[in-house]
This record gives sequence, structure tokens and C-alpha cells, in this order.
Amino acid sequence: MDDRLKRQLDFILEIDKEKSIFRQTHLSGHGRAENDAEHAWHMAVMAWLLREYANEHVDVAKVMMMCLIHDIVEIDAGDTYAYDPAGLQTQQAREDAAKERIYSLLPEDQKAELVAMFDEFENWSSPEARFAHALDNLQPLMLNGSNDGADWKAHGVTARQVYGRQNKTRLGSERLFEVVDGIIREQIRKGNLPEGEE
Amino acid sequence: MDDRLKRQLDFILEIDKEKSIFRQTHLSGHGRAENDAEHAWHMAVMAWLLREYANEHVDVAKVMMMCLIHDIVEIDAGDTYAYDPAGLQTQQAREDAAKERIYSLLPEDQKAELVAMFDEFENWSSPEARFAHALDNLQPLMLNGSNDGADWKAHGVTARQVYGRQNKTRLGSERLFEVVDGIIREQIRKGNLPEGEE
Repeated sequence: MDDRLKRQLDFILEIDKEKSIFRQTHLSGHGRAENDAEHAWHMAVMAWLLREYANEHVDVAKVMMMCLIHDIVEIDAGDTYAYDPAGLQTQQAREDAAKERIYSLLPEDQKAELVAMFDEFENWSSPEARFAHALDNLQPLMLNGSNDGADWKAHGVTARQVYGRQNKTRLGSERLFEVVDGIIREQIRKGNLPEGEE
Repeated sequence: MDDRLKRQLDFILEIDKEKSIFRQTHLSGHGRAENDAEHAWHMAVMAWLLREYANEHVDVAKVMMMCLIHDIVEIDAGDTYAYDPAGLQTQQAREDAAKERIYSLLPEDQKAELVAMFDEFENWSSPEARFAHALDNLQPLMLNGSNDGADWKAHGVTARQVYGRQNKTRLGSERLFEVVDGIIREQIRKGNLPEGEE
């Protein structure tokens, strides 16, 4: 087998490990914790179905691939919970090292392509990146909303904190931010999410 | 919220259940059984990275979406093992009913789009469908090969049966069929897969 194909297959087998990186979000129906591969799958389907709501025109294949790969670095770096300030401080360094190790398995051109796509996502620096972030925010919110906010309750998260993160959803999609806002308000109304101090 | 967006979100929440449909394949490293959402995620990443090996030019976004949705019917119909003749007899009827129920949650235009894409996949009737099938065949073979053929051993599957299924891989990609053939030969050589009777 030629070196290029071998490297591609090595990378593909390596990322199988993403299925063992578990998140704080739980599956609907008060299920088990969700893993990164499942989360990415869900986001990529959403990218196709909801692309009409992106603020700017997006290349849907690029959004889908961005969604599919955005958490691969967590194979080494682990999942960092969105409301964990200590974890967030070291996240960058851990993810940079992971990015270099894992994407280096690929042929050079595909390493460059996927690293550029990941960096674009991290920097919110394209319409595709901003829309992918909107989906990255909406997907766990939908699951958590369907579970009466159980994940927020488990971590003592307030609506103020959720809005702190979700306000950027509108950079990718004003329309999907309205959905987000509706879910948060409903959860506050139901007593599943305290508003938090000013 | 308008009816269109509500239907899209209802469908998106419904397919969360695909994460609870488990397959016969096990994760690399002799891990747990893989579920359909993880399998679809893996295939979609492979579609992007390996599209240069498709026999015919493919629309990669379409291949990715086909990969992502091809097992949604199993939410109702369950997973049918590739080497289960009794299950294969009833698979069509079970999947047809599931297809109608689940895709009907979507707005009409998106129902029509995704059903057409699923039917195309099932009928191997486009370059995208044939390439998606090549990935659907290669992905579990890679995992199983990395696990010394444990899934074949558990079900008493022979190389003759594996080739019976995998021969169609070449309809989507002659190059990826060479990879498949290499994995099967290696597993036979290692004693992990009996050749089977003529």
C-alpha cells in the first residue's frame, strides 16, 4: 500500500478513540452521557438541515466537515466543560499539542487542510465557523432542554452563564439564537435553570 | 416558532435515538459495541478524506449526508447483522415503515430530499451511493481487523461470507476494495478468519 493511503487509514483508525471521549451532556430521555463522535454526527446532520438559517451563505460540506472534526483534539486533551473556568485556562495548550500529534498522522496536504479548518473554527473566522459554533451551542442545549435541564442542575449552572456562552450563537445564526433563547426562557420558567446574579 | 423550523427541530431531537442503536462491530482496542451514530460519523469523515479513491466523481457533501443518515431507519427497525439471513428477509419491510414514520417529521421538501437520498443509497443508484457503500463496508472491516477479527469469531463468519458482501465495495472504489482485500487476506493468514467451504 502506498504511504499516502496508509497515513489516511492510520488517521481514520486513530480517531475511533473519539467515541470514548464523554461529554457533560446526556442523551435525550435522561440517557447516558453523550460522546464526542455522537455529538459531531448530530451537529453535521443539523448543518445540512438548518443551513437555510445561517446568517451568511455557507459551503455546507465545509460546515459538515468542521462539525465532524472539531472535537478530535479531545482524544488527547479530554473534554473541557463549557462552565469549568480552571479547565478552560489550560484548554488551549492541551488542544494545541493534540492537534499537532493527531493531524500529523495524515498526508501533509490533508493535515494542512484539516488544521486550517479546525483553526478557522476555533477563531470564528469564517461564515462556516460561525455557523458550526451555532450548532455546537444549540445541539447540547436541545438535549439538555429535553431532559429538564438536568445537566445544568448537576453543575449548578445559571441562565446568566448559559447566555454568556450562547450570546455568540447569534454570530452564526440570528434565527437559531431565537431558538436558543426560547429554550433558555422555557427552562427558567419551569424552574430548571436559576437566572443567576447580575 | 414557525411550523417549518419546529418540524426540523422535532426530527433532530428524534434522531438522537440513533445513538442507542448498537451494532455487531466493536470499537478498536477491543472496546464496547459501536452504535449507529458513531459508525455514521466515522463514515462521513472517511468520505471527505478518501473521496479521491471513488471510482467516479462524487459530490462530497451528498456522500457525507448519505453516510450520516443511512441508518436512521434503524431507530425503529433495529440493526440487521450483515450475516443474519433471517433478519435480512424482514429488513426491507421494517425499514420501509421506519422511513415513512421518521422522515415524515420533517418539512415535505426535506422529507423528499432525504428519502430520495436514502433510496439512492439502498439502490446503489448513483456514484455517491456506491462510494458510501464502499465506506459502509470498509469502516467496520477496519475496526474488526484491528481487533483480530473478534466480531467474525463471535458469529462464526467465514472469509467466503465476507467476500460475498465486500465484493460490491469495488463498485464504489476499486482502490478501497484493494484495502478490503488486504485486510481479509491478513486476517485469514493470522488464523482469525476461516476461508469457508466452496
